[in-house]
Amino acid sequence: MAIRTRQEYLASLKRQKPRVFLAGEEVEDICTHGRFLPGLNSVSITYEAAHDPLFADLSNLFSPLTGEPITRWTHIQKDEKDALVKTRLMRRLGEKLCACHYRCLTSDCLNAAWVTSFEIDRRYNTDYHQMVQNIVRRAQEEDLVIGGAIVDPKGDRRYRPAEQPDPDMYLHVVEKRADGIVVKGAKAHSTAAPYTNMLCVFPCRPMMADEKEFAVAFFTPVDAPGITFICKEPPSPGERRELENPVSSRFGQLETFIVFDHVFVPWENVFLCGEVEFSGLMLSVFNSFHTWHKCACRAASMDTAIGALSLITDYNGTAQAPHIRGYLTDMILSAELVYAAALAAAVDGHTHESGVYIPRRIYGNAGKVFAAMKLGEERYFLQEAGGGVVTTLGSEKDYFHPVTGPYLEKYLCTRDDVAVVDRVKAIKLVEDLVASPFAGWYHGMCISGGATSQTLRERVLADYNLQGVRERALRAIDRK
Amino acid sequence: MAIRTRQEYLASLKRQKPRVFLAGEEVEDICTHGRFLPGLNSVSITYEAAHDPLFADLSNLFSPLTGEPITRWTHIQKDEKDALVKTRLMRRLGEKLCACHYRCLTSDCLNAAWVTSFEIDRRYNTDYHQMVQNIVRRAQEEDLVIGGAIVDPKGDRRYRPAEQPDPDMYLHVVEKRADGIVVKGAKAHSTAAPYTNMLCVFPCRPMMADEKEFAVAFFTPVDAPGITFICKEPPSPGERRELENPVSSRFGQLETFIVFDHVFVPWENVFLCGEVEFSGLMLSVFNSFHTWHKCACRAASMDTAIGALSLITDYNGTAQAPHIRGYLTDMILSAELVYAAALAAAVDGHTHESGVYIPRRIYGNAGKVFAAMKLGEERYFLQEAGGGVVTTLGSEKDYFHPVTGPYLEKYLCTRDDVAVVDRVKAIKLVEDLVASPFAGWYHGMCISGGATSQTLRERVLADYNLQGVRERALRAIDRK
Amino acid sequence: MAIRTRQEYLASLKRQKPRVFLAGEEVEDICTHGRFLPGLNSVSITYEAAHDPLFADLSNLFSPLTGEPITRWTHIQKDEKDALVKTRLMRRLGEKLCACHYRCLTSDCLNAAWVTSFEIDRRYNTDYHQMVQNIVRRAQEEDLVIGGAIVDPKGDRRYRPAEQPDPDMYLHVVEKRADGIVVKGAKAHSTAAPYTNMLCVFPCRPMMADEKEFAVAFFTPVDAPGITFICKEPPSPGERRELENPVSSRFGQLETFIVFDHVFVPWENVFLCGEVEFSGLMLSVFNSFHTWHKCACRAASMDTAIGALSLITDYNGTAQAPHIRGYLTDMILSAELVYAAALAAAVDGHTHESGVYIPRRIYGNAGKVFAAMKLGEERYFLQEAGGGVVTTLGSEKDYFHPVTGPYLEKYLCTRDDVAVVDRVKAIKLVEDLVASPFAGWYHGMCISGGATSQTLRERVLADYNLQGVRERALRAIDRK
Amino acid sequence: MAIRTRQEYLASLKRQKPRVFLAGEEVEDICTHGRFLPGLNSVSITYEAAHDPLFADLSNLFSPLTGEPITRWTHIQKDEKDALVKTRLMRRLGEKLCACHYRCLTSDCLNAAWVTSFEIDRRYNTDYHQMVQNIVRRAQEEDLVIGGAIVDPKGDRRYRPAEQPDPDMYLHVVEKRADGIVVKGAKAHSTAAPYTNMLCVFPCRPMMADEKEFAVAFFTPVDAPGITFICKEPPSPGERRELENPVSSRFGQLETFIVFDHVFVPWENVFLCGEVEFSGLMLSVFNSFHTWHKCACRAASMDTAIGALSLITDYNGTAQAPHIRGYLTDMILSAELVYAAALAAAVDGHTHESGVYIPRRIYGNAGKVFAAMKLGEERYFLQEAGGGVVTTLGSEKDYFHPVTGPYLEKYLCTRDDVAVVDRVKAIKLVEDLVASPFAGWYHGMCISGGATSQTLRERVLADYNLQGVRERALRAIDRK
Repeated sequence: MAIRTRQEYLASLKRQKPRVFLAGEEVEDICTHGRFLPGLNSVSITYEAAHDPLFADLSNLFSPLTGEPITRWTHIQKDEKDALVKTRLMRRLGEKLCACHYRCLTSDCLNAAWVTSFEIDRRYNTDYHQMVQNIVRRAQEEDLVIGGAIVDPKGDRRYRPAEQPDPDMYLHVVEKRADGIVVKGAKAHSTAAPYTNMLCVFPCRPMMADEKEFAVAFFTPVDAPGITFICKEPPSPGERRELENPVSSRFGQLETFIVFDHVFVPWENVFLCGEVEFSGLMLSVFNSFHTWHKCACRAASMDTAIGALSLITDYNGTAQAPHIRGYLTDMILSAELVYAAALAAAVDGHTHESGVYIPRRIYGNAGKVFAAMKLGEERYFLQEAGGGVVTTLGSEKDYFHPVTGPYLEKYLCTRDDVAVVDRVKAIKLVEDLVASPFAGWYHGMCISGGATSQTLRERVLADYNLQGVRERALRAIDRK
Repeated sequence: MAIRTRQEYLASLKRQKPRVFLAGEEVEDICTHGRFLPGLNSVSITYEAAHDPLFADLSNLFSPLTGEPITRWTHIQKDEKDALVKTRLMRRLGEKLCACHYRCLTSDCLNAAWVTSFEIDRRYNTDYHQMVQNIVRRAQEEDLVIGGAIVDPKGDRRYRPAEQPDPDMYLHVVEKRADGIVVKGAKAHSTAAPYTNMLCVFPCRPMMADEKEFAVAFFTPVDAPGITFICKEPPSPGERRELENPVSSRFGQLETFIVFDHVFVPWENVFLCGEVEFSGLMLSVFNSFHTWHKCACRAASMDTAIGALSLITDYNGTAQAPHIRGYLTDMILSAELVYAAALAAAVDGHTHESGVYIPRRIYGNAGKVFAAMKLGEERYFLQEAGGGVVTTLGSEKDYFHPVTGPYLEKYLCTRDDVAVVDRVKAIKLVEDLVASPFAGWYHGMCISGGATSQTLRERVLADYNLQGVRERALRAIDRK
Repeated sequence: MAIRTRQEYLASLKRQKPRVFLAGEEVEDICTHGRFLPGLNSVSITYEAAHDPLFADLSNLFSPLTGEPITRWTHIQKDEKDALVKTRLMRRLGEKLCACHYRCLTSDCLNAAWVTSFEIDRRYNTDYHQMVQNIVRRAQEEDLVIGGAIVDPKGDRRYRPAEQPDPDMYLHVVEKRADGIVVKGAKAHSTAAPYTNMLCVFPCRPMMADEKEFAVAFFTPVDAPGITFICKEPPSPGERRELENPVSSRFGQLETFIVFDHVFVPWENVFLCGEVEFSGLMLSVFNSFHTWHKCACRAASMDTAIGALSLITDYNGTAQAPHIRGYLTDMILSAELVYAAALAAAVDGHTHESGVYIPRRIYGNAGKVFAAMKLGEERYFLQEAGGGVVTTLGSEKDYFHPVTGPYLEKYLCTRDDVAVVDRVKAIKLVEDLVASPFAGWYHGMCISGGATSQTLRERVLADYNLQGVRERALRAIDRK
Repeated sequence: MAIRTRQEYLASLKRQKPRVFLAGEEVEDICTHGRFLPGLNSVSITYEAAHDPLFADLSNLFSPLTGEPITRWTHIQKDEKDALVKTRLMRRLGEKLCACHYRCLTSDCLNAAWVTSFEIDRRYNTDYHQMVQNIVRRAQEEDLVIGGAIVDPKGDRRYRPAEQPDPDMYLHVVEKRADGIVVKGAKAHSTAAPYTNMLCVFPCRPMMADEKEFAVAFFTPVDAPGITFICKEPPSPGERRELENPVSSRFGQLETFIVFDHVFVPWENVFLCGEVEFSGLMLSVFNSFHTWHKCACRAASMDTAIGALSLITDYNGTAQAPHIRGYLTDMILSAELVYAAALAAAVDGHTHESGVYIPRRIYGNAGKVFAAMKLGEERYFLQEAGGGVVTTLGSEKDYFHPVTGPYLEKYLCTRDDVAVVDRVKAIKLVEDLVASPFAGWYHGMCISGGATSQTLRERVLADYNLQGVRERALRAIDRK
């Protein structure tokens, strides 16, 4: 099988029968349900890009594993060059206007599982790594989308997994059988899960010696019996828009709460089961990849925001005002610093013995925290520069109405070389980016997605060589 | 007539017949149209407060003009004590959970018109001031809501009003008659206008000698022939919610674009007509009042956000984590500084010869700019502390559904002494505050409402005694 | 005795014989020792102001206690009006160019001691309050400077006072005698102490039931036997400067470490001795006054910095550049917000039963934290706007040298209407404010003086009505 | 000649006879003048590192030009790998505790001259490039330090160079002779110039067609007749310190104002003379190198600051407090982001046709602006965490004094496993970093050195593809 097209991706979904609920109703076919379209569009851009001359060079390569053409999303990253190309691809895909295509998760999961299974095998003579290789091979051959199911509900925060009154607060093994395991629990915050081809499930924290049943990681088809997806509606308008929501009408992911109610997983899909000392490794490597991806991806969205600010101020006739140029510059500084963090992670990584080139985590984590904190500023600038009209202009229906339309056409005119309809569109673009349900969803994703800032901050502190610089300070005071 | 009740306010609206369009349709009766309800609720809290023992002491007083009981909204502010009480009232009203009751505009307009008309009369021996006194008296006797219609569409920003290719880009007088004037133009960004009792219309910038027809200010009933309101839907859900949108289901203003298509205004409602050197005064005084009000009001909303963060982290079981306490402290610091700006404006004002006590503008403007810039941080903290669940939890319909409900009930449990439904409500409160259409609208209002930050910054620089401190620096270098 | 002059203040110091060490040498007479001059100058501005028509109205009043004219520094503050006048005085004194005149401590100590002694007497029928009244009366009659000696060395931070391996880590009573007590310990961070007339010594934290000997507060002459002052040199150049250090050549305090080695204090100077439940009250009231004062005072220094930036950019010829105007505006915003915090504290305080009007603590603390955090920004702006020349221009000796002087005269010329010597002076002013030892000292004082930000942050969180806003959030989710 | 030692570097200075003034006196021999020692120490660390096994691998390589071993400072950078090694070297040199070794300028000047001369030759068939190659060859063979002399005094900012009332405000050619040119003018802000081996002089702005005489760039020995250095004292104490100023006692550069009073430059040292369209190129390439270097170097200093904060809080006993860990994390975030900018510039550069690999300018500029803005925060954290003792502790003379020493030894004790003298040293380290003349100098260098933030901001805006993202926004609103 070759690199898939959008149609082939959608066809693969048609063959899956996940149990999906959305807004209080069971969804029979997500491919024909309108509310899933923004999500399908979002994931599809990675398939479209693979066949688009503008992106193909960055997107596609020959797999060292299969020798066949694949996309980078299923590739086991082998060196710094790989990482740099992927970094550039992630930012370039911003051209497609989609804030999150989710395909980075495929890469995060496969690479992290590759490393984790390798390490466990080395210690325990298990044969997880061969299984993961098979999954990767299949992911490459079928150009799959893989979803991450990571964050347990956690229950009472005062207690460890083994101490929870309800043991299901962390997903765990309830039965071990000759042919596989049965798991129970749930995973929250699983973006796009129902329209992936396969889930990668693993612990959201390291487990201790008495928590073996919680130390479990595996792949599973999305329609395995016992899996239920409870979806949140996409941050997109429920009806067709002509001028409004130019981004969120087309793109936007559904978030999912996944219940695993006695789900059977055959051994050939399991790559961690009780080896507690490796229970944190998967998340750790995943994190190195994911925050790196997020930095590049966030820079791409910042570019879009900068473009929007440039356009609306051009139409408003204020583009050359010094304060507007200052806003642009501040936004560019943020975008380039976040992207620099992605490039640094790519160039300053290391190659794990299993052959995976792992980006340097501290940059991705630092960049992601910085990006999360800067989003408020970005929105301030867009609201400031867009002006009150972003907040107060009525709907496109007013613009198309025979009584109110002509009034708006007359009074929204600024420069005579800018069509009023274009200015209205630009206003609605800014509104979509800063004041829509999409804006709210994106804000949350930037802050909480891939770990909250506080978690990442703690990791940054742990990753930094504090001992080394304290010794430097000691040398300073001893004048050595 | 006494201080009105909510019912009396609504009854007064019933008697008005404004021409209103909303989302592409003409609205016959705003009082019975569901989309207007959040707006009516918002304004009504000022009427409810006047009859609520918790607020009445702050809200109500005897009018020095009529000797009758009135609310502070129609009062001509006479001293620092008045201003301090109003400041406290504005923050206290945060208890009512409404982010903007809009009633401050009544006060802003009446006080500014009082000053402006007094000044013009003194120079020109006009009799505007008596007219304004009559309006104030009526506003007090009938406990009116007055709306502001201020911001002209502005057209091509390169040109002054008189230079615009289309002269209607700034509202202007097209005919002077014995009994009044006829005006044409439009006013953007007019919050709540259709459900006020009277509009106060005035220029959004000082006019020059050749722009006499643009120097016009007046009061007008909202249903004067020729006035058309093009409304934006409120940032509220269009259907009933049980758990979601606890704030925006109830409160939220409609923004309006107002067209004045040959509107007749009798002389007894006009208080500026051609006296260009006073064309900027109204805005200037209005601004002194309005940004002061906004600081107190913004602090009130910050309190609500702090409460929401405290509640959700309490339910999540993270309230005592040092970083959470840090977020709370940062939010409190911002709230108290913004409120301090309001108090400072109140205490450091001056009494105009006409008898109006005008708050010191620099504090209100500085506080408003600071508040606008801090909103992004507030949302960052709420998203961070609320956690991914704010972004990913599905709708209340999932929670009430027989299949998915029990799953959510089981897995959203944190502390055993917190009912899951309460945690869901708290999550939905945070979502309402940071990731809803309400959040988008409120963000825009904080930044653009009452002038964008750049405009206020320029005024702050102009108001500050730069010459004085430069002379101090000169004394420093000359060691005097 | 009347309000003192500078000369009378200095004469009073002449009569005192404190044991003072500075830079490794014992100082016989601080009044004639050159390194003490900046400190004496600093305190003296409060005496000069009292006799200067520009400040006298704000500075002086009739004492309700003695009926005689006094300065505000010794006044027991009785109402909001008092507090507002003092706030204005503190900012106005910025005209004198001294960053810290230290006289606010006199006020902080007297008012806090007044409240504390009143409270203890009420509970224990002690007669401390009469003693404090006597001290206040004397301070008013003799127009004294009173120094604060508050912060204990603290020893090992893991232990409470009573648990310290060395009990002297917190100042404590070692002997109680019929005529008084003997104390031992030390107090760090005591600005200006040797050139005050009297010290006010009190605990830097609340003491527990088993820490009675640490719960001690008293006044003492600075030359009581057993007191040793170990002084840090002032942040001033050690030699005369013509053009350089225009501020720090004249003004700047000495910091002192005070050792109390078996110091006798007669009962008539003691106002807390073992009443542990009141051991934190003195600090608490002191803090309410001190951070309030610091906000007004910090705004005054910000004004000076703004003046310096305005002047240097005027001389550089860049004053009208938009980014320079932006820097000015940002600095003004900070100054006005910090001052607003001071005004708010003044206007929103309460009158204690003892008659003292106590400013509202949360504003002073919030403003002080904000000011401390903004200092880095102020310096960034001054360095940015001043340009590289602030960092690279040699000393005034080069400017006065026959070879290098003419070169500098030629090449430092900018606008032909600005004398080069004036530009040099302005450059040196900016250097003095941001890159001198004075700059370093002032930075530390802004951050650590009167409690570090973390301490104040915790107090702000404690002072805020968190319970109240959480209940508001509860009402929100219950739609009440 | 091989890679030089510190001794060989100093010997080379001995052979030079520059005309140097410092603090109003002419300096005969900078090598034996105590005030020059910190500068000589600073530059020397690059020579010491070359012979230190810890740094040699990063520092040294074989020159593609001479085939001999050289240091990276004289190397013509040929690829991304070169750039990455240099980036790492710059940060690693932080171990040496010197905030600025100045050697990056050698690299900046040689590489930029290489590119510039190549471009001019291509257009004009001049033979500048061969001359530059000769200089580079000599710099490599003799392992030279090269100083930059770039910033003209600029005179009246309203006028271009050709318009200045005094033509010397920009350095220019006053005579062209067969054997060379004679130049007149001055260059400000020239760090370390007198103790370099050679100056590289070039315009600080692009010149226009009528400004040919100002378009001049050349190398010159530092002791060419007519050159006068007016030096600013180093930010180091003038006397020996045992405990104080552990960094600035040893390291710190002198800033120089250089006068060129009819200086003759032989043609073989000139590489731009009248080719106005290339007058901005040198600065542009220089800037690409210099801000990149500064980002790596600033990260190195941030590491030192982080080490100092870690050490002092360890000694104070507060290292584990959550807020201290938060400060550390914030500082690490900044350090890693700034360093990420350096890595990104290194990895995302391009190879010029002349063979020079030029780092991507936008990252270095963005990183430098970010670093400059973050310095205030770094100092805030150090002051906050260090505590009041940083500001108030007297000099080491008090600590060594027989009377005051024992008091300090007793009362400065914190943890019993930390020697008080070590705590004093750590306090003095923090003071040296944040509150000393060194701190002031370093602050200025971070902000103004290598162009002020405003200049860099304008370049960032110009370098960013604004047109590209505006077109993306256009595609968004047209839903393409």
